[in-house]
Amino acid sequence: MSVIRRFTPDERGGFRWEAVDRLRYKEEGSAPFKDVTRQVLFAQPDHASELRYFEVAPGGHSTLERHRHTHAVLILRGHGTVTIGDATHPVAERDLVTIDPLVWHQFQAAPGSALGFLCLVAKERDRPELPPGDGAPPSAAADD
Amino acid sequence: MSVIRRFTPDERGGFRWEAVDRLRYKEEGSAPFKDVTRQVLFAQPDHASELRYFEVAPGGHSTLERHRHTHAVLILRGHGTVTIGDATHPVAERDLVTIDPLVWHQFQAAPGSALGFLCLVAKERDRPELPPGDGAPPSAAADD
Repeated sequence: MSVIRRFTPDERGGFRWEAVDRLRYKEEGSAPFKDVTRQVLFAQPDHASELRYFEVAPGGHSTLERHRHTHAVLILRGHGTVTIGDATHPVAERDLVTIDPLVWHQFQAAPGSALGFLCLVAKERDRPELPPGDGAPPSAAADD
Repeated sequence: MSVIRRFTPDERGGFRWEAVDRLRYKEEGSAPFKDVTRQVLFAQPDHASELRYFEVAPGGHSTLERHRHTHAVLILRGHGTVTIGDATHPVAERDLVTIDPLVWHQFQAAPGSALGFLCLVAKERDRPELPPGDGAPPSAAADD
């Protein structure tokens, strides 16, 4: 059905939309992360890809992980950093982040700012891999 | 290659990104439109879909058209209106617009504001169809 779903931020400025559920980022305990939510903005039956929105609360972070599919991210809210392989870079609203297959990566919100980003992914994709042990990426990371 | 492409608006506030070409919306004369540009933000080899950014200058409009693929749009800049079938609706930053297959549609920037929007599309998609004659959609539009 053709529809306009209005942008309706919550009382704390969190990005929300009409008729879009705010979901857990992942199951608690399934992987290390802190203060992240997930919203599926578009998942059309005739599209092979989805557009999802993740929001990391101030000071929070996504899981350090890697996967075979390319990451295609547009920062939609706030600022923070992204770790790609061995390097950490600042990111701000509307920056585009491309992460190659099998490169370890993690998004971190700044201490005083949420970090929200769009992520374009194929509906059928491989599951992320987590680093072994203490959460540090293996030294022989695929992006070396 | 993993890369961060910074958001670098032009001197007039037009949305631009590092290493992203600003292209013609369509070939001049191929279809009626006014003051629209196109930028391909993501077109990864392993993705079946692309994320594109269209910007309509104040007072401009996209082509009135329809196609078999679903339109999935997120307004990224400014405000204006979207015509879907027989109805015209206001749209503003971050609103989500879904347009069903074969529904006539057109985006219009407000007289005093650019209208920029992300569009998620399959790389392989049907070509848009234009209305016959004077540019008004046939009265028996597919969304009736």
